[in-house]
Amino acid sequence: MKPTLIFWYEFASTYSYLTAMRIDAEGARAGVAIEWRPFLLGPIFKSQGWTTSPFNVYPAKGRYMVRDITRIASERGLPFRMPETFPANGLKAARLAIAARGWGATAAFSRAVFEAQFAGGEDISDDDVLAACLTRVGLDPASVWPRIMDDSVKAALKRNTEMAQGLGIFGAPSFTTADNELFWGDDRLAEALRWASAPMALPNSADSPG
Amino acid sequence: MKPTLIFWYEFASTYSYLTAMRIDAEGARAGVAIEWRPFLLGPIFKSQGWTTSPFNVYPAKGRYMVRDITRIASERGLPFRMPETFPANGLKAARLAIAARGWGATAAFSRAVFEAQFAGGEDISDDDVLAACLTRVGLDPASVWPRIMDDSVKAALKRNTEMAQGLGIFGAPSFTTADNELFWGDDRLAEALRWASAPMALPNSADSPG
Repeated sequence: MKPTLIFWYEFASTYSYLTAMRIDAEGARAGVAIEWRPFLLGPIFKSQGWTTSPFNVYPAKGRYMVRDITRIASERGLPFRMPETFPANGLKAARLAIAARGWGATAAFSRAVFEAQFAGGEDISDDDVLAACLTRVGLDPASVWPRIMDDSVKAALKRNTEMAQGLGIFGAPSFTTADNELFWGDDRLAEALRWASAPMALPNSADSPG
Repeated sequence: MKPTLIFWYEFASTYSYLTAMRIDAEGARAGVAIEWRPFLLGPIFKSQGWTTSPFNVYPAKGRYMVRDITRIASERGLPFRMPETFPANGLKAARLAIAARGWGATAAFSRAVFEAQFAGGEDISDDDVLAACLTRVGLDPASVWPRIMDDSVKAALKRNTEMAQGLGIFGAPSFTTADNELFWGDDRLAEALRWASAPMALPNSADSPG
C-alpha cells in the first residue's frame, strides 16, 4: 500500500496556494498518496490572540511574504496576485471542498478556488466566485451548494480544525504522516514526502523552549 | 569583484545556528562573499509587542521549531541541544563578535558561540562561556574583552539593529543582497546566494496585504 501524506490547508493562505498547485504531482513522483484536508486557521489564530492573519498583525512580515511568494511563484511559472481582501473568509470554500469529496473533486475544486483568489485576485467569500469554481471543475452548483448546510459537512470541517490543533498545527500549509510527524510550510513538502515513505530515526528530541 | 551577501544573525536564534555552520562553505561554492553581521532581535520583537521569543509566546510554534531543528540538524550531521535558558541574552556575544572583526575572527568566534549554545547547551550570557569561545578560536580574552565597552563597538551593534529594522528584517537568520533584496530563514539561503550573483527580473510586486 502507498504511504499517505495529509495536506492541511486553509483557503486564505498564500503559501497553501503554492503547495496546492504542485502537491499532487510531487506526491505522484514520490509514490505518496495525498489526502487533501481543509481546515480553518481562524480559530487557531484566535487562541493565539490574533483576530486576523499574522501577515496583517505584523506588517513587515506581510510585506516580506508578498515578495517571497512573488519570487517563488515567478520561479515556478505561477501567476500571483494578492486579493483585495486578505485574509478572505474561507468558511464556505472549505465546506464546499469537503462536500466535493462526494464527487471525488476536493483537490480539483480546491485548486480552482486558490487560482481564483491568488491568480485572479477574486474574493472567495463571494458566492458567485465559488459557484464559478464549482462549474469550472465540472460540478453542478445546484447539486453541491446545498450540501454546505449539511450537519455532516459542517461537523467534518469543525473536526478537521480541532484535529489540526490537536496535532500541534499552527499555520498552513502543514503536512502530517501516518506516525503524526508534523511539517509546516510549502518549503517542507519534500521533507514531508520523504518522511511519509521512510521516517527518519532521530536522537531523543530536546525539550521545548521556555 | 565577487558579489556579497550579508548574513544577519542573532545569537539566540536556533535557525541562525543552522546557517552559521554552513554559510561560509555554501558561499564559497556559489562564488559569493559572506559578510557576517550580528544584530539584536530583542528591540525588533519589542516593537511587535513581544517581550520574549515568538517560540515562547506561541508554544505550539516553539515545540515545532525544536522538532524541525532536530530533524534538519540530524540530516546535516550537526549536534543539537536546546540550552536551558531560551532565548539567551546575546548582547555581549554580539558585541564581542563585532570586536573580533579587528582580529578577522567574527565568523570563527560566532560559530564557536553558536556551538557552545546549541551543541553544548551552554548559557552564552555567561562571561566564562564567552571567554572560552574566544580562547577556542585563538583570541586572547584579555585583549578582546575590554573592547565590548568601546563606544564604537556599542554603536556598531546599535546601527546593525537599526539597519536591520530599516531593511524590513523581522527574524533571523536573514540575508540581504547589494540591491537590498531580503530573504528570511535558513531555508532561503540557496535563493539568497543565487540572487546575490544574478538578481531575478520579477513582475511588479503585488500590494502588501491589509
